[in-house]
Amino acid sequence: MGGSKVLSDLLQTLSRLGNQFLALGPSVPEDEARSIERWCTRLLSSTGEASGMAIAGIIVEHWRRLNEDGRRDFLHMLKDRFGVDRDRLFAAAEKYIEDPSDLLAAELHRAAEPERQDLFRRLNLTPGGIDFLVRVREDLLSRLADDPELHVVDIDFVHLFSSWFNRGFLTLERIDWNTPAIILEKIIRYEAVHEITSWDDLRLRLHPEDRRCYAFFHPQLPDEPLIFLEVALTREMPSGIAPLLSESRPPVRAEESTHAVFYSISNCQQGLRGISFGNFLIKQVVEDLRREFPNIREFVTLSPVPRFTAWLKQEALQESVPGAEDVLRLTERENWMGDENVREELSRLLPAIAAHYFLVARNARGQVIDPVARFHFGNGASLARINLFGDLSVKAAQNALGLMVNYRYDLKDVEKNHERFVLGAEIAAAPAVRGLLPARRSGSARMPALPAGESSE
Amino acid sequence: MGGSKVLSDLLQTLSRLGNQFLALGPSVPEDEARSIERWCTRLLSSTGEASGMAIAGIIVEHWRRLNEDGRRDFLHMLKDRFGVDRDRLFAAAEKYIEDPSDLLAAELHRAAEPERQDLFRRLNLTPGGIDFLVRVREDLLSRLADDPELHVVDIDFVHLFSSWFNRGFLTLERIDWNTPAIILEKIIRYEAVHEITSWDDLRLRLHPEDRRCYAFFHPQLPDEPLIFLEVALTREMPSGIAPLLSESRPPVRAEESTHAVFYSISNCQQGLRGISFGNFLIKQVVEDLRREFPNIREFVTLSPVPRFTAWLKQEALQESVPGAEDVLRLTERENWMGDENVREELSRLLPAIAAHYFLVARNARGQVIDPVARFHFGNGASLARINLFGDLSVKAAQNALGLMVNYRYDLKDVEKNHERFVLGAEIAAAPAVRGLLPARRSGSARMPALPAGESSE
Amino acid sequence: MGGSKVLSDLLQTLSRLGNQFLALGPSVPEDEARSIERWCTRLLSSTGEASGMAIAGIIVEHWRRLNEDGRRDFLHMLKDRFGVDRDRLFAAAEKYIEDPSDLLAAELHRAAEPERQDLFRRLNLTPGGIDFLVRVREDLLSRLADDPELHVVDIDFVHLFSSWFNRGFLTLERIDWNTPAIILEKIIRYEAVHEITSWDDLRLRLHPEDRRCYAFFHPQLPDEPLIFLEVALTREMPSGIAPLLSESRPPVRAEESTHAVFYSISNCQQGLRGISFGNFLIKQVVEDLRREFPNIREFVTLSPVPRFTAWLKQEALQESVPGAEDVLRLTERENWMGDENVREELSRLLPAIAAHYFLVARNARGQVIDPVARFHFGNGASLARINLFGDLSVKAAQNALGLMVNYRYDLKDVEKNHERFVLGAEIAAAPAVRGLLPARRSGSARMPALPAGESSE
Amino acid sequence: MGGSKVLSDLLQTLSRLGNQFLALGPSVPEDEARSIERWCTRLLSSTGEASGMAIAGIIVEHWRRLNEDGRRDFLHMLKDRFGVDRDRLFAAAEKYIEDPSDLLAAELHRAAEPERQDLFRRLNLTPGGIDFLVRVREDLLSRLADDPELHVVDIDFVHLFSSWFNRGFLTLERIDWNTPAIILEKIIRYEAVHEITSWDDLRLRLHPEDRRCYAFFHPQLPDEPLIFLEVALTREMPSGIAPLLSESRPPVRAEESTHAVFYSISNCQQGLRGISFGNFLIKQVVEDLRREFPNIREFVTLSPVPRFTAWLKQEALQESVPGAEDVLRLTERENWMGDENVREELSRLLPAIAAHYFLVARNARGQVIDPVARFHFGNGASLARINLFGDLSVKAAQNALGLMVNYRYDLKDVEKNHERFVLGAEIAAAPAVRGLLPARRSGSARMPALPAGESSE
Repeated sequence: MGGSKVLSDLLQTLSRLGNQFLALGPSVPEDEARSIERWCTRLLSSTGEASGMAIAGIIVEHWRRLNEDGRRDFLHMLKDRFGVDRDRLFAAAEKYIEDPSDLLAAELHRAAEPERQDLFRRLNLTPGGIDFLVRVREDLLSRLADDPELHVVDIDFVHLFSSWFNRGFLTLERIDWNTPAIILEKIIRYEAVHEITSWDDLRLRLHPEDRRCYAFFHPQLPDEPLIFLEVALTREMPSGIAPLLSESRPPVRAEESTHAVFYSISNCQQGLRGISFGNFLIKQVVEDLRREFPNIREFVTLSPVPRFTAWLKQEALQESVPGAEDVLRLTERENWMGDENVREELSRLLPAIAAHYFLVARNARGQVIDPVARFHFGNGASLARINLFGDLSVKAAQNALGLMVNYRYDLKDVEKNHERFVLGAEIAAAPAVRGLLPARRSGSARMPALPAGESSE
Repeated sequence: MGGSKVLSDLLQTLSRLGNQFLALGPSVPEDEARSIERWCTRLLSSTGEASGMAIAGIIVEHWRRLNEDGRRDFLHMLKDRFGVDRDRLFAAAEKYIEDPSDLLAAELHRAAEPERQDLFRRLNLTPGGIDFLVRVREDLLSRLADDPELHVVDIDFVHLFSSWFNRGFLTLERIDWNTPAIILEKIIRYEAVHEITSWDDLRLRLHPEDRRCYAFFHPQLPDEPLIFLEVALTREMPSGIAPLLSESRPPVRAEESTHAVFYSISNCQQGLRGISFGNFLIKQVVEDLRREFPNIREFVTLSPVPRFTAWLKQEALQESVPGAEDVLRLTERENWMGDENVREELSRLLPAIAAHYFLVARNARGQVIDPVARFHFGNGASLARINLFGDLSVKAAQNALGLMVNYRYDLKDVEKNHERFVLGAEIAAAPAVRGLLPARRSGSARMPALPAGESSE
Repeated sequence: MGGSKVLSDLLQTLSRLGNQFLALGPSVPEDEARSIERWCTRLLSSTGEASGMAIAGIIVEHWRRLNEDGRRDFLHMLKDRFGVDRDRLFAAAEKYIEDPSDLLAAELHRAAEPERQDLFRRLNLTPGGIDFLVRVREDLLSRLADDPELHVVDIDFVHLFSSWFNRGFLTLERIDWNTPAIILEKIIRYEAVHEITSWDDLRLRLHPEDRRCYAFFHPQLPDEPLIFLEVALTREMPSGIAPLLSESRPPVRAEESTHAVFYSISNCQQGLRGISFGNFLIKQVVEDLRREFPNIREFVTLSPVPRFTAWLKQEALQESVPGAEDVLRLTERENWMGDENVREELSRLLPAIAAHYFLVARNARGQVIDPVARFHFGNGASLARINLFGDLSVKAAQNALGLMVNYRYDLKDVEKNHERFVLGAEIAAAPAVRGLLPARRSGSARMPALPAGESSE
Repeated sequence: MGGSKVLSDLLQTLSRLGNQFLALGPSVPEDEARSIERWCTRLLSSTGEASGMAIAGIIVEHWRRLNEDGRRDFLHMLKDRFGVDRDRLFAAAEKYIEDPSDLLAAELHRAAEPERQDLFRRLNLTPGGIDFLVRVREDLLSRLADDPELHVVDIDFVHLFSSWFNRGFLTLERIDWNTPAIILEKIIRYEAVHEITSWDDLRLRLHPEDRRCYAFFHPQLPDEPLIFLEVALTREMPSGIAPLLSESRPPVRAEESTHAVFYSISNCQQGLRGISFGNFLIKQVVEDLRREFPNIREFVTLSPVPRFTAWLKQEALQESVPGAEDVLRLTERENWMGDENVREELSRLLPAIAAHYFLVARNARGQVIDPVARFHFGNGASLARINLFGDLSVKAAQNALGLMVNYRYDLKDVEKNHERFVLGAEIAAAPAVRGLLPARRSGSARMPALPAGESSE
């Protein structure tokens, strides 16, 4: 019996048992918010597992029908009514201070666990419970900026999700034209980098011999990809997205390809933000492709540079990057990409600026500015090439003046690169990229705005 | 790609990566104990996931080669070197006492978490990691009686296993003659109630139309049943095990059966003791069978009474149960079961004693004495019938003077029964069973050893 | 290892072996037609199975590259060069006439088998061979009208396909939103009754709770549905297609439905025309739905009437059906469906004519005129209702003046109905339908307008 | 829905429909033989497919209950009552002689087809039909020697089975410790070369890293292997069976093996005798292993020599093979294998005789004498080595004086070897084997009894 069959069977059982044990009719009490709190309380005190599942199912059902305000109230209820028992925690803390033994530390640990963690665990017993919890966190995250108090609730989500979505539980599945439609429609929906416009467009990403797509799945969410990676098999490191996705390209025979190009990676579940598995995905795919195609020698990305323009504008204001203003002026007009002179001019100015953006510039927290770069550097990739005019779409023209870059995954270096990156050492980059930086000696005068720490580079 | 394929692929990757990143040759350092501690420390400080998986794999490999003393040392190392950071916890406790806010409670919760929980989570990243942790806990439990200090380590196992083996993750699978041999051989090995003597014997438990077997599986342990339940479909509530398992019985057509008899339930993983899923299993199977065979009206067990003789001997010493000494004297000789007179005598004496054992007698902690009874009463079953001479095997003659009982699972009552049992109310039993008790009024004098609480019955 | 994996593996082996054994380079001789004949001859004389598979693969590859004329020549080559050995057959016939023994009959049977049957069997050994043969027959059927000589080749296709596509080999699969896209795109393409306009439209046919779709598959063509049936679960017998397919309808809960409506059945493989499995499909689906939903009481179709207008025009010419001319005149204008008066008029005239069309009218070969009706009556269905204005699409307005009908599948009657239909007895129809016929008594000479041939009914 | 589910569902439907349409109660008429003929006649004239399936099911059920005589009568009934229509065939033969056209040839072909072929096709419609037909042929083959008239019936079985068990329909599956027990128990039962004595013994053949087993399956017989091949991965060409199967051997790591040894191939279905797929199986396995383990360089068998002793005795009588009498005398005593002197003597005498047996000796029909040799030579293998004392079991001592041989499958030669073997050319053998033959010139005197045909060698 497959998992999803069990789920649906349990769901039927559930509604039967719910009615049976709880004398709950199909109608639901009027005052949802108070009602849902009562059910949560009841769930925590329930000792029978059948009634527990039934109650959990009722809570899920109530929540689905809540409006915006109701959902906000639900989150605050989680914060206020299902936190720690302060008296118990206070007492446990005092006792531990008196006698710091292992057993009292364990009691302190128990006392410091907010009640909502137990609530979440019990909610996870019901079919669809985990999906529900992911949705609730998605809702929470969307409110966090305006309602930072909810952060304490998020801590508990992160604690449990890190355990439940442990890499050990995930399975890697290939997505292709043999994949069920119920999953494919989610690939269309969740693609976040280069939009998939139709099922025909989707087929072009999955079906040709030189295309691959892989996703991670969790056993309790069999129809929901968590994250997916789109791959093109090529015979060279690509410099632009349009030729890569062109319908009219001659497909490369997989056995004759030499490069695997990761041109899109998309997280599917907002409610799992920060629960990291992208790094595992890329490395697992590198391993699998290497085994399947010994002919593939290079594993690279073709990646966007989403913050480039925004950074450049800021630097131009501060006059900290030479040429920034010129570049911005040149790209002011709408169709600058069509103007040969402009492109020529940019070809002269942009490389050094782009190299600076990746290798030198840092944000206020001392981090590499580009989030995509942070992700790949953090995974141990190196910067292989900067491609001018790599993406001529409106979005890329706005965000990155058309820039795209290739990151390289070389398994024998990733670990070392990763550790160096975490320690704040020099960014790993191909010599040709590094060579784009203005010469060091004279540069010190021309790039005064660098943080002091950089001089140690 | 199936999960187990992924695991084995990862394992290959792992050994490659392990050698690559860690410069670890196939040979292993001499001083295993110190070495394994160093690897654990390194795992906790590792920031790269590939090296993390490689290190976890190395730890697993080391542990496998440890001898008895090495494994004991390993557990004590977990206790001593990977507990809480006392200074940090002390400070966090003090801060919370000063300002009992939610955020400081969260910090206190983090500080109170022993480092080994993080270690266990990281070990679970490696293929085979969860299996390893279950084995380690199995080892721990076997030492707990002699080495009670290890209990604080077990607290962490229980905390994490309760999350990882949450009912929501488990799948129910039917075990039959179409099941892979790699699973079936474990059914033979783990059967704990009525031994399976051979593959032919196994086939008799699985293959006939009137036999069923169900097990829970965890997605990370696809070849390891966690617990399984053997079922016979019959046309009456059985009173003895031999006819039920007789090879020569005429098989009942499943569509014509009226009773589902749970005659054996076995936990497979010692390392998951106390992580309860038996109750879910029985109820899920009741639901599934009910859906498949509307003709089945009764769901009952045929269960052993493992502590009966031991209890009786104790009571005989205390002269608290009338007839105890007579019964023990009658069953002193080896072949008492073959003696018609003895059986006649026992038929007169045993029923009241047995009813007393289940319904009235309690151990020092106020619990029902029989662990099997506690399990089924705790699940909400009721005591349907007491069967004299239900099991004539040597083991049952020794443990229970041949007694077997039927517990009844009536879904509409289980929740109520469960809650009443938890609250310490009267045991649910069929009137005929209750009627076996000595009459109430005169009884008060004859059963003086009952705890006071029982008088409220 | 799944079948399709084996196929692709074999395919790889094949090309390797082909080159190895046959010293065949990737280039192919110029004169394809002569070349393909040589390969066919070589295939028939080949004694090694590896070379046999390689040669078969080469033939398939050659044929794919043939143009129209090349394919016609290929068929004629099958007819002329790979027929029976006339001398051998002549001799065998003479011998049998002399001595009509069983063994000589067996020899005669062998001698009478055209060599191309053996050729087809050997071609079927290669992966993709059966698909190739189905395509070749598709090509043959498209030429048969102009080139009737090819009929003798078709006899051999029918002989082998009847064996290979025997019902016993087919598997029934449910098609739903969990079905792989590679199959779903074929459902879109092959839907022959009510066009599926997009993937969204497809989802509406498969995904809602009150929709089902089933198809037959052959193990050697795992991605190719042979025939599929679309079903709506409803609470009444529907009278028109638009409300049935309306996006905005409230979906019926499957457990509360009372009718299963077969509103579309489509053959997918032109090359399997005449190899009947439609009847098996409907009855198997009736059985499966009956088991799954005991609440479904009625199994009916909502079917088009594709030949109605054509027949009516013919009858109007012959003045054999009263009212035919009136009807045709009323429906002359393009938008007659929007004219309330016309519809009123038609409501008066059409029922009797339609009843006559189904129950009385016959074509020159004495058959019921409507091919859809012939199919369902042949399967044992009865005519349940005639629906005026059931389909307002342009196609249905042209072909059937908007008529649709319901056929009823009542399993307890289908066998009897089928046999009566085959024997030429009265068509099975609901009394209300039969009552639409002009009154029996007043019908002087019963049906004065009927063609003479009908009187023999 | 899986195939076997469909089958069992259909079976249920069937019995329902059978009772419904045919008014057949559970009881069965007394006179089975006459009754079964009536049902066969009815099946042939049935026009409805539901009743057809029901009738086919009834025939299968009747046959199962027939005793030996009943089954013999059934076969004769097939021969006598369901052969060709002689009058029709006679007429068709005459017509063809008059006008030998393609269409009349087709009609002659139809007329020459015995009615039982149609009967068999219709029986195949019922679930379990193909299994039934295989059993019936098994029964037929067991009677053929005593009842040669039945050969004409067998011709029809072979004709249809060749079509239904076409290689294109078969799937290759790996058999290992993950295979369902229902299949594994058949591996135990059908192993025909080296007996599998228990499930533990079976595990030793399937589970270790250096063991493989593969089988062909037919989609309609999912639980019935048709033929299977056992493989050992080794580091040298083995010379005896005992070390190969020794429990205590150190297992070879699959990646380090250099030889794949086919040490057992067993047909499972007597009823499919002569429907060849063994050659496909070996070559497919060679291909698969070659792909999986590029390290494997040699594919050889370790094979028995079942007819050696019988042949030797015959030759000794005719005094045609020098040394035959000596050898037989030496091996007369029961424990000759334990006698060092005997073994030494045999080591001197046997090689030349064994080489003669394989390379020179022929039976009355001019064939190689050993059936195992015929099979492998026919597949294109060559004789790689003769191993004295390769199998010390009682059976092998009796049949082959302990001889075993290795045949080599070298894919680049198999086709050529096969064709040469079919044409009667010299047997392919390693030079070392050929060198065991007595020298040619002087040999003519020493081996006078060779058939003349050999001189052309």
